[in-house]
Amino acid sequence: MTPYDRAVQKFTRIATLNEAASILSWDGAAMMPPGGATARGEQMATLAGLSHDLLTAPDLADDLAAAVPPNDEWRAVNLDLMREDQKRATALPRDLVEAATRANSACETLWREARPASDFLSVRPALEEVVNLARQAAEILGQALGRTPYDALMSGYQRGLTAADVTPIFARYEAFLQSALPVAEARQRANPPEQLPPGPFPTDAQEQLCRRLSAAAGLNFGAARLDRSAHPFCGGTPTDIRITTRYDEQDFCAALMGVLHETGHALYEQNRPKPYARQPVGESAGMAAHESQSLIVEMQAVRSDAYLFYLAPLASDAFATTITPAALKSRLRHVERTFIRVEADEMTYPAHVILRYRLEQALISGDLAVADLPAAWNDGFHALLGITPPDDRRGCLQDIHWYDGLIGYFPSYTLGAMAAAQLMAAARKAIPTLDDSLTTGDLSPLTTWLTANVHSQGARLTFNALLTAATGEPLNPTHFETHLATRYLA
Amino acid sequence: MTPYDRAVQKFTRIATLNEAASILSWDGAAMMPPGGATARGEQMATLAGLSHDLLTAPDLADDLAAAVPPNDEWRAVNLDLMREDQKRATALPRDLVEAATRANSACETLWREARPASDFLSVRPALEEVVNLARQAAEILGQALGRTPYDALMSGYQRGLTAADVTPIFARYEAFLQSALPVAEARQRANPPEQLPPGPFPTDAQEQLCRRLSAAAGLNFGAARLDRSAHPFCGGTPTDIRITTRYDEQDFCAALMGVLHETGHALYEQNRPKPYARQPVGESAGMAAHESQSLIVEMQAVRSDAYLFYLAPLASDAFATTITPAALKSRLRHVERTFIRVEADEMTYPAHVILRYRLEQALISGDLAVADLPAAWNDGFHALLGITPPDDRRGCLQDIHWYDGLIGYFPSYTLGAMAAAQLMAAARKAIPTLDDSLTTGDLSPLTTWLTANVHSQGARLTFNALLTAATGEPLNPTHFETHLATRYLA
Repeated sequence: MTPYDRAVQKFTRIATLNEAASILSWDGAAMMPPGGATARGEQMATLAGLSHDLLTAPDLADDLAAAVPPNDEWRAVNLDLMREDQKRATALPRDLVEAATRANSACETLWREARPASDFLSVRPALEEVVNLARQAAEILGQALGRTPYDALMSGYQRGLTAADVTPIFARYEAFLQSALPVAEARQRANPPEQLPPGPFPTDAQEQLCRRLSAAAGLNFGAARLDRSAHPFCGGTPTDIRITTRYDEQDFCAALMGVLHETGHALYEQNRPKPYARQPVGESAGMAAHESQSLIVEMQAVRSDAYLFYLAPLASDAFATTITPAALKSRLRHVERTFIRVEADEMTYPAHVILRYRLEQALISGDLAVADLPAAWNDGFHALLGITPPDDRRGCLQDIHWYDGLIGYFPSYTLGAMAAAQLMAAARKAIPTLDDSLTTGDLSPLTTWLTANVHSQGARLTFNALLTAATGEPLNPTHFETHLATRYLA
Repeated sequence: MTPYDRAVQKFTRIATLNEAASILSWDGAAMMPPGGATARGEQMATLAGLSHDLLTAPDLADDLAAAVPPNDEWRAVNLDLMREDQKRATALPRDLVEAATRANSACETLWREARPASDFLSVRPALEEVVNLARQAAEILGQALGRTPYDALMSGYQRGLTAADVTPIFARYEAFLQSALPVAEARQRANPPEQLPPGPFPTDAQEQLCRRLSAAAGLNFGAARLDRSAHPFCGGTPTDIRITTRYDEQDFCAALMGVLHETGHALYEQNRPKPYARQPVGESAGMAAHESQSLIVEMQAVRSDAYLFYLAPLASDAFATTITPAALKSRLRHVERTFIRVEADEMTYPAHVILRYRLEQALISGDLAVADLPAAWNDGFHALLGITPPDDRRGCLQDIHWYDGLIGYFPSYTLGAMAAAQLMAAARKAIPTLDDSLTTGDLSPLTTWLTANVHSQGARLTFNALLTAATGEPLNPTHFETHLATRYLA
């Protein structure tokens, strides 16, 4: 065996161990009785510790150092990615990692009390510690990887993207929003919404419909499950996908959109390149790429006129009532300035992300002190959306991310939304009958194209290279603006 | 930290890893979509490999060698058990372990075809390889542990028991059976059975009843789940028990007895000593001890007159029909000579075990060649029960155990049944109102006594020492004979 082959074998072992953790994580959210929580935390920590030990073992470092870059592109990229993973895992001193783990856990615990109480002061010292340690880690990682501290964090979620790429894109969107949002609102006021019939919509009927639509969208339930959890997610492994949702008897749309969103993630996972399973190059192209796949299903395909025309009679059947495409449209394509990111519509959502992107950069650079975060949040929010959060619960306390040490992730949401619009435009060009097929609920022309151009490409290409190969150009926010203009301004 | 403390920490890590494997194993049987099977096999193998690596690491051997036996009994036994676990794991050369793993897997695969086809010849060469490797392993383990080869295998499942203990107990039962079985049969013929009403008994109603009775028997569903799988089992971890069953719409008794059997196992797991969680001394006292706990619930308590009096109206309610205690008794306390172990009643079941015990000893000693197994099985079966299996499907092909390399386990079933009768007799003496409480479905007097005398004792005592502490004497088969005589001969 060559050093490269030995490294491949070791990464396979690490990935297999991480698969076990992924199933256990799903179980913890969807199945585990409450009594199991403490032991599960210890099991997850043990698996993570072993995985980290394997990734930082000296013999793997030796193999990676000795490996000769293979001749073919896939394996060459795989070696690069293995080296980056190993560098990330070894760059940080153990003391710092342990201090951060403790600080994140302590801060998250306090946050769970602070958010409903809207009590930022009670969590402020803990958040200061989290940010302080994250800043140290970003500094060290940046040096090891040859990036700025913030870029080192962001590239952990979306390889190859830097603040230099993202900042102008977000600035441009801010300008677009300032002009588009009032127009969309005026148009909505001029066209009073058609109401959906009142509930309840029985949970079992919702679940059946979700499963049917997910399967119709291409999810293979011979290698996937749909279950319930407090927060929807897509987990598991490529041959054993676990998607979850929650059901609200008063609003069937939430679960439906949630499941179709997770179905987009799941299709990516099911169709990653099998020859490189359990290798870094066989993973997804990153979190922005992943989000593009959930949003192209949920936002581009499912909320289209064509698909809602298909969905309305199915929903009417499922709930034994009359649900029109127009009523679905009013519910699923409504623009509104609101305070909570996870409830935001697709036009205002990027504003929530842009705010967080700017603030987290300032926290990492030291330009913003944690003590000044609530005021900076409220000012920034007002500048973007023209309204001011009445309290921190609806402001800087709403998301778990920072309080759990997760910094650099937020941009992925909006980059994914923009990429989804760009990919959809390219798919429509490649498949002139795409929208016709959506009127019968058939997503297969779209998903076949996505599998060929995105899913099966694994992590071979960076985000922008992947978009260029699939659409002819790197991320171009015009497509997202065109999509929004067509849907909300026309 | 002392060497003992370091060893404790390492065993905690190993046990935590094994807990993860236990939950994944449950998932594989109860939740996993078929597509996940291959990857799950690899995940399980990876976890088992890591667990084995940790147990055989040189630094653990050093700690165990350097450890000074602690002063208190629990910790002293824990050190002994750690040393034995480590010895078992390191005694066998890696080549032999890997050859056995491959041979067992290949043989089990062939057996899955051979059993329904009743085709022993097709699996014979594979079984010869399995037995050959098991014999080598038994030889090496015996030398390492200072036991005979068969005792080395058996003590892996039930510490402290040897063939010298078991052989006379089984010989005595054989004699009892020869005289008791014809009497029980004659008594049955004289009292024609009362029939249960015909089904179907809806699965959901069965499951509800199972859950209710399991909770009433003491299972804490805040730290346990009940689900469905092809083969019932009790898995998971002490704070997160997973029991499973299967439902037959024509026969509600099978699932009910299955769940109450697994509830007995689950109560043992939930009540193992918490200060020694994840340490060998905090485990159960072995498989015979474990089986005594499932059987004391299922056979001793639940199939008693008192409990069936409680169960009949509940079952009537659940299935909206009339189910009498007498009809339950006819179904649940029926003696019959049959060929299949897992379907056998409690009186003839030990004959199935005794046969296997004798044959597996002969296979390991080399006195019996695999080629001669079918004939030896049929002769032995006829000698014990007076009937001859018409084919190998109902003979030596019926159980997976040997074909998967599992040798030395079988005695535990019957030793457990005997221990259950002995413990029940002692509990009745200690709690004069025990049977009164069973008439209201209340098992708590019994299970409280079992928790104090068995569950909370962990693995501190060997099987016979545990029985002596709880009942005043080591395993005495008289109690089981008395139980059977009272139930089937009186």
